[in-house]
Amino acid sequence: MTDEDAIADDLRTRIAASPFHSGFGVEVEEARRGEVRLGWEARDERRNLQGLVHGGVLATLVDMAMGLAVRSVVGEARRHVTIEMTVHFLRPASPGRLRAIGTTQRVGSQIAFADGTIFDANDRILVRATAAYSVTADRDAASG
Amino acid sequence: MTDEDAIADDLRTRIAASPFHSGFGVEVEEARRGEVRLGWEARDERRNLQGLVHGGVLATLVDMAMGLAVRSVVGEARRHVTIEMTVHFLRPASPGRLRAIGTTQRVGSQIAFADGTIFDANDRILVRATAAYSVTADRDAASG
Amino acid sequence: MTDEDAIADDLRTRIAASPFHSGFGVEVEEARRGEVRLGWEARDERRNLQGLVHGGVLATLVDMAMGLAVRSVVGEARRHVTIEMTVHFLRPASPGRLRAIGTTQRVGSQIAFADGTIFDANDRILVRATAAYSVTADRDAASG
Amino acid sequence: MTDEDAIADDLRTRIAASPFHSGFGVEVEEARRGEVRLGWEARDERRNLQGLVHGGVLATLVDMAMGLAVRSVVGEARRHVTIEMTVHFLRPASPGRLRAIGTTQRVGSQIAFADGTIFDANDRILVRATAAYSVTADRDAASG
Repeated sequence: MTDEDAIADDLRTRIAASPFHSGFGVEVEEARRGEVRLGWEARDERRNLQGLVHGGVLATLVDMAMGLAVRSVVGEARRHVTIEMTVHFLRPASPGRLRAIGTTQRVGSQIAFADGTIFDANDRILVRATAAYSVTADRDAASG
Repeated sequence: MTDEDAIADDLRTRIAASPFHSGFGVEVEEARRGEVRLGWEARDERRNLQGLVHGGVLATLVDMAMGLAVRSVVGEARRHVTIEMTVHFLRPASPGRLRAIGTTQRVGSQIAFADGTIFDANDRILVRATAAYSVTADRDAASG
Repeated sequence: MTDEDAIADDLRTRIAASPFHSGFGVEVEEARRGEVRLGWEARDERRNLQGLVHGGVLATLVDMAMGLAVRSVVGEARRHVTIEMTVHFLRPASPGRLRAIGTTQRVGSQIAFADGTIFDANDRILVRATAAYSVTADRDAASG
Repeated sequence: MTDEDAIADDLRTRIAASPFHSGFGVEVEEARRGEVRLGWEARDERRNLQGLVHGGVLATLVDMAMGLAVRSVVGEARRHVTIEMTVHFLRPASPGRLRAIGTTQRVGSQIAFADGTIFDANDRILVRATAAYSVTADRDAASG
Protein backbone atom coordinates (compact mmCIF):
# COMPACT_ATOMS: atom_id res chain seq x y z
CA MET A 1 0.00 0.00 0.00
CA THR A 2 1.43 3.36 -1.02
CA ASP A 3 1.44 6.38 1.25
CA GLU A 4 -1.35 7.89 -0.80
CA ASP A 5 -3.49 4.78 -0.43
CA ALA A 6 -2.85 4.85 3.32
CA ILE A 7 -3.94 8.48 3.53
CA ALA A 8 -7.10 7.86 1.48
CA ASP A 9 -7.88 4.82 3.64
CA ASP A 10 -7.48 6.81 6.86
CA LEU A 11 -9.82 9.52 5.56
CA ARG A 12 -12.43 7.00 4.38
CA THR A 13 -12.33 5.28 7.77
CA ARG A 14 -12.78 8.62 9.48
CA ILE A 15 -15.74 9.51 7.24
CA ALA A 16 -17.37 6.12 7.76
CA ALA A 17 -17.05 6.51 11.54
CA SER A 18 -18.80 9.90 11.52
CA PRO A 19 -22.60 9.87 11.09
CA PHE A 20 -22.44 13.48 9.97
CA HIS A 21 -19.83 12.88 7.26
CA SER A 22 -21.35 9.66 6.00
CA GLY A 23 -24.89 11.07 6.12
CA PHE A 24 -23.72 13.98 4.04
CA GLY A 25 -22.75 11.49 1.34
CA VAL A 26 -19.25 12.61 0.55
CA GLU A 27 -16.67 10.32 -1.13
CA VAL A 28 -12.88 10.53 -1.12
CA GLU A 29 -11.85 10.42 -4.78
CA GLU A 30 -8.17 11.07 -4.29
CA ALA A 31 -5.91 12.02 -1.42
CA ARG A 32 -2.29 12.75 -0.81
CA ARG A 33 -0.47 14.56 1.97
CA GLY A 34 -1.92 18.08 1.97
CA GLU A 35 -4.52 17.64 -0.78
CA VAL A 36 -7.87 15.88 -0.76
CA ARG A 37 -10.43 15.55 -3.57
CA LEU A 38 -14.02 14.76 -2.65
CA GLY A 39 -16.99 13.87 -4.85
CA TRP A 40 -20.55 14.75 -3.86
CA GLU A 41 -23.99 14.73 -5.44
CA ALA A 42 -26.66 17.11 -4.19
CA ARG A 43 -29.87 15.35 -3.18
CA ASP A 44 -33.14 17.22 -3.61
CA GLU A 45 -33.52 18.24 0.04
CA ARG A 46 -30.19 20.03 -0.22
CA ARG A 47 -31.63 22.37 -2.83
CA ASN A 48 -33.47 25.63 -2.30
CA LEU A 49 -36.65 26.88 -3.93
CA GLN A 50 -34.85 27.74 -7.16
CA GLY A 51 -33.34 24.23 -7.35
CA LEU A 52 -29.90 25.48 -6.41
CA VAL A 53 -27.74 23.95 -3.70
CA HIS A 54 -27.97 26.04 -0.51
CA GLY A 55 -24.89 28.08 0.36
CA GLY A 56 -24.61 26.51 3.79
CA VAL A 57 -24.39 23.08 2.17
CA LEU A 58 -21.61 24.23 -0.13
CA ALA A 59 -19.85 25.71 2.91
CA THR A 60 -20.16 22.32 4.63
CA LEU A 61 -18.74 20.50 1.60
CA VAL A 62 -15.72 22.77 1.19
CA ASP A 63 -15.16 22.77 4.97
CA MET A 64 -14.96 18.95 4.84
CA ALA A 65 -12.45 19.04 1.97
CA MET A 66 -10.22 21.53 3.79
CA GLY A 67 -10.53 19.79 7.16
CA LEU A 68 -9.64 16.41 5.65
CA ALA A 69 -6.63 18.00 3.90
CA VAL A 70 -5.41 19.24 7.29
CA ARG A 71 -6.08 15.77 8.69
CA SER A 72 -3.97 14.22 5.92
CA VAL A 73 -0.99 16.19 7.25
CA VAL A 74 -1.51 16.11 11.02
CA GLY A 75 -2.54 12.45 11.09
CA GLU A 76 -4.44 10.69 13.84
CA ALA A 77 -2.18 11.81 16.66
CA ARG A 78 -3.18 15.48 16.57
CA ARG A 79 -6.55 17.21 16.52
CA HIS A 80 -7.57 20.22 14.49
CA VAL A 81 -10.45 22.58 15.15
CA THR A 82 -11.72 25.20 12.72
CA ILE A 83 -11.05 28.74 13.96
CA GLU A 84 -12.38 30.55 10.93
CA MET A 85 -13.68 29.87 7.46
CA THR A 86 -14.36 32.32 4.62
CA VAL A 87 -16.42 31.22 1.65
CA HIS A 88 -16.84 33.07 -1.66
CA PHE A 89 -19.76 32.02 -3.83
CA LEU A 90 -18.68 32.62 -7.44
CA ARG A 91 -21.53 30.89 -9.25
CA PRO A 92 -24.82 29.19 -8.34
CA ALA A 93 -24.56 25.40 -8.02
CA SER A 94 -26.82 23.79 -10.58
CA PRO A 95 -27.67 20.05 -10.42
CA GLY A 96 -25.01 17.41 -11.04
CA ARG A 97 -21.98 15.92 -9.36
CA LEU A 98 -19.68 18.37 -7.60
CA ARG A 99 -16.01 17.99 -6.72
CA ALA A 100 -14.37 19.72 -3.77
CA ILE A 101 -10.61 20.06 -3.41
CA GLY A 102 -8.96 21.00 -0.13
CA THR A 103 -5.28 21.97 0.00
CA THR A 104 -3.16 22.90 2.99
CA GLN A 105 -1.19 26.10 2.63
CA ARG A 106 0.72 25.77 5.88
CA VAL A 107 0.48 23.39 8.81
CA GLY A 108 2.38 24.81 11.77
CA SER A 109 2.75 23.46 15.28
CA GLN A 110 -0.29 25.43 16.49
CA ILE A 111 -2.10 26.88 13.47
CA ALA A 112 -2.91 25.41 10.05
CA PHE A 113 -4.18 27.15 6.92
CA ALA A 114 -6.05 25.61 3.99
CA ASP A 115 -7.70 26.60 0.71
CA GLY A 116 -10.73 24.95 -0.83
CA THR A 117 -12.45 24.98 -4.21
CA ILE A 118 -15.70 23.46 -5.46
CA PHE A 119 -16.03 22.63 -9.15
CA ASP A 120 -19.14 21.63 -11.04
CA ALA A 121 -19.33 18.80 -13.60
CA ASN A 122 -18.06 21.21 -16.28
CA ASP A 123 -15.00 22.19 -14.19
CA ARG A 124 -16.30 25.66 -13.50
CA ILE A 125 -15.39 27.08 -10.10
CA LEU A 126 -18.48 27.54 -7.91
CA VAL A 127 -16.87 28.23 -4.54
CA ARG A 128 -13.50 29.42 -3.25
CA ALA A 129 -12.77 29.15 0.44
CA THR A 130 -10.00 29.65 2.96
CA ALA A 131 -9.81 28.51 6.56
CA ALA A 132 -7.62 28.59 9.64
CA TYR A 133 -7.37 25.74 12.14
CA SER A 134 -6.07 25.37 15.65
CA VAL A 135 -3.89 22.26 15.80
CA THR A 136 -3.45 20.58 19.14
CA ALA A 137 -1.71 17.50 20.41
CA ASP A 138 -4.08 14.60 20.93
CA ARG A 139 -4.88 14.22 24.61
CA ASP A 140 -4.38 10.48 24.63
CA ALA A 141 -1.11 10.79 22.79
CA ALA A 142 -0.01 13.61 25.08
CA SER A 143 -0.81 11.64 28.21
CA GLY A 144 0.51 8.35 26.82
CA MET B 1 -51.30 42.36 12.37
CA THR B 2 -48.28 44.45 13.26
CA ASP B 3 -45.39 44.97 10.87
CA GLU B 4 -43.30 42.61 12.96
CA ASP B 5 -45.92 39.90 12.79
CA ALA B 6 -46.10 40.38 9.03
CA ILE B 7 -42.34 40.03 8.70
CA ALA B 8 -42.23 36.90 10.88
CA ASP B 9 -45.12 35.45 8.88
CA ASP B 10 -43.37 36.11 5.57
CA LEU B 11 -40.19 34.41 6.84
CA ARG B 12 -42.11 31.39 8.19
CA THR B 13 -43.91 31.02 4.86
CA ARG B 14 -40.61 31.17 3.05
CA ILE B 15 -39.07 28.55 5.34
CA ALA B 16 -42.09 26.25 5.00
CA ALA B 17 -41.88 26.49 1.20
CA SER B 18 -38.21 25.44 1.15
CA PRO B 19 -37.48 21.75 1.70
CA PHE B 20 -33.94 22.67 2.68
CA HIS B 21 -34.96 25.20 5.32
CA SER B 22 -37.78 23.13 6.76
CA GLY B 23 -35.70 19.92 6.68
CA PHE B 24 -33.02 21.74 8.62
CA GLY B 25 -35.56 22.28 11.38
CA VAL B 26 -35.14 25.98 11.99
CA GLU B 27 -37.85 28.11 13.68
CA VAL B 28 -38.40 31.86 13.55
CA GLU B 29 -38.62 33.00 17.17
CA GLU B 30 -38.74 36.71 16.54
CA ALA B 31 -38.33 39.01 13.57
CA ARG B 32 -38.36 42.67 12.82
CA ARG B 33 -37.05 44.70 9.91
CA GLY B 34 -33.30 43.98 9.83
CA GLU B 35 -33.12 41.46 12.67
CA VAL B 36 -34.17 37.81 12.82
CA ARG B 37 -33.89 35.36 15.71
CA LEU B 38 -33.98 31.65 14.96
CA GLY B 39 -34.19 28.66 17.28
CA TRP B 40 -32.67 25.31 16.37
CA GLU B 41 -31.92 22.02 18.07
CA ALA B 42 -29.11 19.82 16.81
CA ARG B 43 -30.22 16.30 15.96
CA ASP B 44 -27.72 13.49 16.44
CA GLU B 45 -26.77 13.15 12.78
CA ARG B 46 -25.66 16.77 12.84
CA ARG B 47 -22.98 15.93 15.40
CA ASN B 48 -19.45 14.74 14.81
CA LEU B 49 -17.53 11.94 16.49
CA GLN B 50 -16.95 14.00 19.62
CA GLY B 51 -20.68 14.80 19.91
CA LEU B 52 -20.17 18.38 18.79
CA VAL B 53 -22.21 20.08 16.09
CA HIS B 54 -20.23 20.15 12.82
CA GLY B 55 -18.87 23.55 11.79
CA GLY B 56 -20.57 23.37 8.40
CA VAL B 57 -23.93 22.95 10.15
CA LEU B 58 -23.30 26.01 12.31
CA ALA B 59 -22.29 27.91 9.16
CA THR B 60 -25.61 26.86 7.59
CA LEU B 61 -27.57 28.00 10.64
CA VAL B 62 -25.94 31.43 10.86
CA ASP B 63 -26.17 31.83 7.07
CA MET B 64 -29.94 31.28 7.34
CA ALA B 65 -30.27 33.87 10.12
CA MET B 66 -28.32 36.47 8.13
CA GLY B 67 -30.08 35.69 4.85
CA LEU B 68 -33.51 35.95 6.46
CA ALA B 69 -32.50 39.28 8.04
CA VAL B 70 -31.65 40.59 4.57
CA ARG B 71 -34.95 39.18 3.32
CA SER B 72 -36.80 41.06 6.09
CA VAL B 73 -35.51 44.30 4.58
CA VAL B 74 -35.60 43.63 0.84
CA GLY B 75 -38.98 41.90 0.95
CA GLU B 76 -40.42 39.58 -1.67
CA ALA B 77 -39.85 41.91 -4.59
CA ARG B 78 -36.07 41.66 -4.62
CA ARG B 79 -33.68 38.72 -4.54
CA HIS B 80 -30.48 38.40 -2.57
CA VAL B 81 -27.61 36.01 -3.24
CA THR B 82 -24.72 35.38 -0.87
CA ILE B 83 -21.43 36.70 -2.26
CA GLU B 84 -19.28 35.89 0.73
CA MET B 85 -19.59 34.60 4.26
CA THR B 86 -16.96 34.53 7.02
CA VAL B 87 -17.53 32.41 10.09
CA HIS B 88 -15.54 32.49 13.34
CA PHE B 89 -15.90 29.51 15.65
CA LEU B 90 -15.44 30.83 19.20
CA ARG B 91 -16.49 27.77 21.17
CA PRO B 92 -17.52 24.18 20.41
CA ALA B 93 -21.29 23.64 20.24
CA SER B 94 -22.34 21.19 22.93
CA PRO B 95 -25.84 19.62 22.93
CA GLY B 96 -28.93 21.76 23.58
CA ARG B 97 -31.04 24.36 21.85
CA LEU B 98 -29.17 27.03 19.93
CA ARG B 99 -30.30 30.51 18.95
CA ALA B 100 -29.03 32.34 15.89
CA ILE B 101 -29.46 36.08 15.40
CA GLY B 102 -28.97 37.75 12.03
CA THR B 103 -28.76 41.54 11.75
CA THR B 104 -28.38 43.67 8.65
CA GLN B 105 -25.62 46.27 8.82
CA ARG B 106 -26.43 47.94 5.54
CA VAL B 107 -28.80 47.11 2.70
CA GLY B 108 -27.88 49.15 -0.37
CA SER B 109 -29.38 49.11 -3.82
CA GLN B 110 -26.88 46.46 -5.01
CA ILE B 111 -25.01 45.11 -1.98
CA ALA B 112 -26.20 44.15 1.50
CA PHE B 113 -24.13 43.36 4.61
CA ALA B 114 -25.18 41.34 7.64
CA ASP B 115 -23.76 40.04 10.93
CA GLY B 116 -24.73 36.82 12.63
CA THR B 117 -24.25 35.27 16.06
CA ILE B 118 -25.04 31.83 17.46
CA PHE B 119 -25.66 31.51 21.22
CA ASP B 120 -25.99 28.33 23.24
CA ALA B 121 -28.64 27.67 25.91
CA ASN B 122 -26.44 29.50 28.45
CA ASP B 123 -26.15 32.61 26.23
CA ARG B 124 -22.52 32.00 25.44
CA ILE B 125 -21.42 33.05 21.96
CA LEU B 126 -20.43 30.03 19.85
CA VAL B 127 -20.17 31.61 16.41
CA ARG B 128 -19.73 35.10 14.99
CA ALA B 129 -20.25 35.61 11.27
CA THR B 130 -20.38 38.34 8.65
CA ALA B 131 -21.66 38.16 5.09
CA ALA B 132 -22.12 40.19 1.95
CA TYR B 133 -25.04 39.77 -0.45
CA SER B 134 -25.77 40.84 -3.98
CA VAL B 135 -29.25 42.35 -4.09
CA THR B 136 -31.10 42.32 -7.38
CA ALA B 137 -34.50 43.34 -8.59
CA ASP B 138 -36.81 40.39 -8.97
CA ARG B 139 -37.10 39.51 -12.64
CA ASP B 140 -40.86 39.13 -12.56
CA ALA B 141 -41.28 42.36 -10.66
CA ALA B 142 -38.89 44.13 -12.99
CA SER B 143 -40.68 42.94 -16.09
CA GLY B 144 -44.13 43.34 -14.54
CA MET C 1 -5.27 55.88 38.51
CA THR C 2 -8.26 53.76 37.56
CA ASP C 3 -7.93 50.49 35.71
CA GLU C 4 -9.23 52.16 32.58
CA ASP C 5 -6.63 54.89 32.80
CA ALA C 6 -3.94 52.26 33.27
CA ILE C 7 -5.12 50.38 30.17
CA ALA C 8 -5.25 53.56 28.05
CA ASP C 9 -1.78 54.50 29.29
CA ASP C 10 -0.36 51.10 28.40
CA LEU C 11 -1.82 51.33 24.90
CA ARG C 12 -0.53 54.89 24.38
CA THR C 13 2.94 53.82 25.50
CA ARG C 14 2.83 50.93 23.10
CA ILE C 15 1.74 53.16 20.20
CA ALA C 16 4.42 55.75 20.99
CA ALA C 17 7.09 53.05 21.01
CA SER C 18 6.08 51.77 17.54
CA PRO C 19 7.18 53.90 14.56
CA PHE C 20 4.46 52.27 12.50
CA HIS C 21 1.65 53.06 14.92
CA SER C 22 2.79 56.59 15.70
CA GLY C 23 3.55 57.35 12.02
CA PHE C 24 0.03 56.22 11.18
CA GLY C 25 -1.24 58.96 13.47
CA VAL C 26 -3.73 57.04 15.55
CA GLU C 27 -4.91 58.26 18.99
CA VAL C 28 -6.44 56.28 21.85
CA GLU C 29 -9.65 58.11 22.75
CA GLU C 30 -10.97 55.61 25.27
CA ALA C 31 -10.02 52.16 26.45
CA ARG C 32 -11.26 49.59 28.86
CA ARG C 33 -10.62 45.89 29.21
CA GLY C 34 -11.76 44.39 25.89
CA GLU C 35 -12.77 47.60 24.11
CA VAL C 36 -10.62 50.31 22.53
CA ARG C 37 -11.74 53.49 20.72
CA LEU C 38 -9.28 55.15 18.36
CA GLY C 39 -9.46 58.50 16.56
CA TRP C 40 -7.77 59.07 13.23
CA GLU C 41 -7.75 61.69 10.54
CA ALA C 42 -6.87 60.75 6.95
CA ARG C 43 -4.02 62.79 5.52
CA ASP C 44 -4.05 63.47 1.79
CA GLU C 45 -1.52 60.80 0.86
CA ARG C 46 -3.84 58.20 2.37
CA ARG C 47 -6.51 59.06 -0.21
CA ASN C 48 -6.96 57.60 -3.65
CA LEU C 49 -7.67 59.32 -6.94
CA GLN C 50 -11.31 59.89 -6.04
CA GLY C 51 -10.33 61.50 -2.70
CA LEU C 52 -11.48 58.45 -0.74
CA VAL C 53 -9.42 56.70 1.91
CA HIS C 54 -7.82 53.57 0.45
CA GLY C 55 -9.28 50.27 1.63
CA GLY C 56 -5.90 49.01 2.80
CA VAL C 57 -5.61 52.05 5.08
CA LEU C 58 -9.02 51.37 6.58
CA ALA C 59 -8.00 47.74 7.06
CA THR C 60 -4.89 48.95 8.90
CA LEU C 61 -6.93 51.25 11.13
CA VAL C 62 -9.48 48.63 12.12
CA ASP C 63 -6.71 46.04 12.56
CA MET C 64 -5.04 48.39 15.07
CA ALA C 65 -8.28 48.88 17.00
CA MET C 66 -8.90 45.12 17.21
CA GLY C 67 -5.26 44.31 18.04
CA LEU C 68 -5.17 46.90 20.82
CA ALA C 69 -8.44 45.53 22.22
CA VAL C 70 -6.82 42.09 22.44
CA ARG C 71 -3.78 43.72 24.02
CA SER C 72 -6.03 45.35 26.65
CA VAL C 73 -7.03 41.87 27.78
CA VAL C 74 -3.83 39.86 27.42
CA GLY C 75 -1.61 42.61 28.85
CA GLU C 76 2.14 42.92 28.43
CA ALA C 77 2.93 39.41 29.53
CA ARG C 78 1.48 37.64 26.51
CA ARG C 79 1.89 38.21 22.78
CA HIS C 80 -0.81 38.10 20.12
CA VAL C 81 -0.33 37.61 16.40
CA THR C 82 -3.06 38.09 13.79
CA ILE C 83 -4.05 34.80 12.15
CA GLU C 84 -6.82 36.18 9.99
CA MET C 85 -8.74 39.38 9.39
CA THR C 86 -11.91 39.91 7.35
CA VAL C 87 -12.96 43.42 6.40
CA HIS C 88 -16.30 44.50 4.93
CA PHE C 89 -16.43 47.90 3.26
CA LEU C 90 -19.96 49.21 3.76
CA ARG C 91 -19.51 52.79 2.57
CA PRO C 92 -16.71 54.86 1.01
CA ALA C 93 -14.71 56.93 3.52
CA SER C 94 -15.11 60.62 2.73
CA PRO C 95 -12.86 63.26 4.36
CA GLY C 96 -13.09 64.00 8.10
CA ARG C 97 -12.16 62.40 11.38
CA LEU C 98 -12.81 58.67 11.70
CA ARG C 99 -13.30 56.58 14.82
CA ALA C 100 -12.43 52.91 15.06
CA ILE C 101 -13.72 50.65 17.82
CA GLY C 102 -12.21 47.26 18.54
CA THR C 103 -13.97 44.78 20.85
CA THR C 104 -12.83 41.36 21.96
CA GLN C 105 -15.42 38.63 21.57
CA ARG C 106 -13.42 35.92 23.26
CA VAL C 107 -9.85 35.71 24.52
CA GLY C 108 -8.92 32.10 25.17
CA SER C 109 -5.65 30.59 26.27
CA GLN C 110 -4.50 30.10 22.67
CA ILE C 111 -6.91 31.93 20.35
CA ALA C 112 -8.58 35.34 20.62
CA PHE C 113 -11.42 36.80 18.54
CA ALA C 114 -12.27 40.47 18.02
CA ASP C 115 -14.72 42.65 16.10
CA GLY C 116 -13.99 46.09 14.72
CA THR C 117 -16.05 48.96 13.35
CA ILE C 118 -15.07 52.25 11.71
CA PHE C 119 -17.48 55.21 11.96
CA ASP C 120 -17.30 58.50 10.14
CA ALA C 121 -17.89 61.93 11.72
CA ASN C 122 -21.65 61.43 11.23
CA ASP C 123 -21.63 58.07 13.06
CA ARG C 124 -22.28 56.12 9.90
CA ILE C 125 -20.63 52.69 9.75
CA LEU C 126 -17.95 52.55 7.04
CA VAL C 127 -16.23 49.29 7.87
CA ARG C 128 -17.07 46.12 9.81
CA ALA C 129 -14.27 43.67 10.54
CA THR C 130 -13.58 40.47 12.42
CA ALA C 131 -10.25 38.90 13.27
CA ALA C 132 -8.67 35.89 14.96
CA TYR C 133 -5.41 36.01 16.90
CA SER C 134 -2.96 33.46 18.15
CA VAL C 135 -2.16 34.23 21.78
CA THR C 136 1.11 33.00 23.17
CA ALA C 137 2.91 33.27 26.47
CA ASP C 138 5.68 35.85 26.41
CA ARG C 139 9.02 34.07 26.08
CA ASP C 140 10.60 36.01 28.91
CA ALA C 141 7.63 35.36 31.15
CA ALA C 142 7.64 31.70 30.19
CA SER C 143 11.33 31.30 30.91
CA GLY C 144 11.22 33.51 34.03
CA MET D 1 3.28 46.79 -28.04
CA THR D 2 1.78 43.49 -26.90
CA ASP D 3 -1.44 43.25 -24.95
CA GLU D 4 0.55 42.42 -21.82
CA ASP D 5 2.72 45.51 -22.24
CA ALA D 6 -0.41 47.60 -22.68
CA ILE D 7 -1.92 46.19 -19.49
CA ALA D 8 1.28 46.77 -17.50
CA ASP D 9 1.49 50.31 -18.90
CA ASP D 10 -2.10 51.06 -17.89
CA LEU D 11 -1.48 49.81 -14.35
CA ARG D 12 1.77 51.79 -14.01
CA THR D 13 -0.01 54.94 -15.21
CA ARG D 14 -2.74 54.37 -12.66
CA ILE D 15 -0.24 53.84 -9.83
CA ALA D 16 1.75 56.95 -10.83
CA ALA D 17 -1.44 59.03 -10.82
CA SER D 18 -2.38 57.92 -7.27
CA PRO D 19 -0.41 59.53 -4.40
CA PHE D 20 -1.42 56.64 -2.19
CA HIS D 21 -0.17 53.94 -4.56
CA SER D 22 3.04 55.72 -5.51
CA GLY D 23 3.74 56.75 -1.89
CA PHE D 24 3.38 53.11 -0.90
CA GLY D 25 6.25 52.31 -3.26
CA VAL D 26 4.80 49.40 -5.19
CA GLU D 27 6.11 48.37 -8.63
CA VAL D 28 4.37 46.38 -11.37
CA GLU D 29 6.77 43.55 -12.23
CA GLU D 30 4.51 41.69 -14.61
CA ALA D 31 0.91 41.89 -15.70
CA ARG D 32 -1.45 40.05 -17.96
CA ARG D 33 -5.21 39.94 -18.17
CA GLY D 34 -6.34 38.65 -14.78
CA GLU D 35 -2.94 38.38 -13.10
CA VAL D 36 -0.66 41.07 -11.69
CA ARG D 37 2.71 40.68 -9.96
CA LEU D 38 3.94 43.51 -7.75
CA GLY D 39 7.32 44.05 -6.08
CA TRP D 40 7.64 45.95 -2.82
CA GLU D 41 10.30 46.60 -0.22
CA ALA D 42 9.32 47.40 3.36
CA ARG D 43 10.79 50.64 4.64
CA ASP D 44 11.59 50.88 8.35
CA GLU D 45 8.49 52.87 9.31
CA ARG D 46 6.37 50.03 7.96
CA ARG D 47 7.80 47.68 10.58
CA ASN D 48 6.57 47.08 14.10
CA LEU D 49 8.52 46.86 17.34
CA GLN D 50 9.79 43.38 16.52
CA GLY D 51 11.04 44.54 13.08
CA LEU D 52 8.23 42.73 11.30
CA VAL D 53 6.02 44.30 8.64
CA HIS D 54 2.67 45.29 10.16
CA GLY D 55 -0.31 43.17 9.16
CA GLY D 56 -2.26 46.18 7.92
CA VAL D 57 0.58 46.99 5.53
CA LEU D 58 0.56 43.45 4.16
CA ALA D 59 -3.21 43.72 3.79
CA THR D 60 -2.71 46.93 1.82
CA LEU D 61 -0.11 45.31 -0.45
CA VAL D 62 -2.21 42.24 -1.25
CA ASP D 63 -5.31 44.43 -1.68
CA MET D 64 -3.43 46.44 -4.32
CA ALA D 65 -2.36 43.29 -6.18
CA MET D 66 -5.92 41.94 -6.22
CA GLY D 67 -7.46 45.29 -7.13
CA LEU D 68 -5.04 45.81 -10.01
CA ALA D 69 -5.78 42.28 -11.25
CA VAL D 70 -9.48 43.16 -11.38
CA ARG D 71 -8.55 46.42 -13.13
CA SER D 72 -6.57 44.45 -15.74
CA VAL D 73 -9.82 42.72 -16.71
CA VAL D 74 -12.42 45.48 -16.36
CA GLY D 75 -10.22 48.14 -17.96
CA GLU D 76 -10.61 51.90 -17.66
CA ALA D 77 -14.27 51.98 -18.62
CA ARG D 78 -15.61 50.30 -15.49
CA ARG D 79 -15.00 50.94 -11.82
CA HIS D 80 -14.50 48.37 -9.09
CA VAL D 81 -14.96 48.86 -5.37
CA THR D 82 -13.86 46.39 -2.71
CA ILE D 83 -16.83 44.82 -0.91
CA GLU D 84 -14.87 42.48 1.28
CA MET D 85 -11.34 41.25 1.83
CA THR D 86 -10.12 38.33 3.94
CA VAL D 87 -6.44 38.03 4.78
CA HIS D 88 -4.66 35.03 6.31
CA PHE D 89 -1.26 35.64 7.84
CA LEU D 90 0.73 32.42 7.40
CA ARG D 91 4.17 33.63 8.45
CA PRO D 92 5.71 36.83 9.83
CA ALA D 93 7.26 39.09 7.18
CA SER D 94 10.96 39.47 7.86
CA PRO D 95 13.05 42.14 6.04
CA GLY D 96 13.70 41.92 2.29
CA ARG D 97 11.84 42.39 -0.97
CA LEU D 98 8.31 40.99 -1.12
CA ARG D 99 6.26 39.98 -4.13
CA ALA D 100 2.47 40.10 -4.26
CA ILE D 101 0.43 38.28 -6.90
CA GLY D 102 -3.21 39.08 -7.55
CA THR D 103 -5.36 36.77 -9.68
CA THR D 104 -8.97 37.16 -10.70
CA GLN D 105 -11.13 34.09 -10.11
CA ARG D 106 -14.24 35.45 -11.76
CA VAL D 107 -15.19 38.85 -13.14
CA GLY D 108 -18.94 39.02 -13.67
CA SER D 109 -21.09 41.89 -14.81
CA GLN D 110 -21.69 43.05 -11.22
CA ILE D 111 -19.34 41.14 -8.90
CA ALA D 112 -15.68 40.18 -9.26
CA PHE D 113 -13.62 37.76 -7.14
CA ALA D 114 -9.84 37.67 -6.74
CA ASP D 115 -7.14 35.78 -4.84
CA GLY D 116 -3.88 37.23 -3.62
CA THR D 117 -0.60 35.84 -2.29
CA ILE D 118 2.48 37.51 -0.81
CA PHE D 119 5.84 35.73 -1.11
CA ASP D 120 9.09 36.63 0.60
CA ALA D 121 12.50 36.67 -1.11
CA ASN D 122 12.79 32.91 -0.49
CA ASP D 123 9.44 32.19 -2.17
CA ARG D 124 7.75 31.30 1.07
CA ILE D 125 4.08 32.23 1.31
CA LEU D 126 3.50 34.93 3.94
CA VAL D 127 -0.08 35.94 3.18
CA ARG D 128 -3.07 34.43 1.42
CA ALA D 129 -6.05 36.64 0.68
CA THR D 130 -9.40 36.61 -1.10
CA ALA D 131 -11.63 39.52 -1.99
CA ALA D 132 -14.94 40.41 -3.61
CA TYR D 133 -15.54 43.54 -5.65
CA SER D 134 -18.56 45.40 -6.88
CA VAL D 135 -18.08 46.21 -10.56
CA THR D 136 -19.98 49.13 -11.97
CA ALA D 137 -20.17 50.88 -15.28
CA ASP D 138 -18.21 54.13 -15.27
CA ARG D 139 -20.65 57.01 -14.98
CA ASP D 140 -18.98 59.05 -17.68
CA ALA D 141 -18.87 56.09 -20.00
CA ALA D 142 -22.46 55.21 -19.18
CA SER D 143 -23.71 58.70 -19.78
CA GLY D 144 -21.44 59.28 -22.81
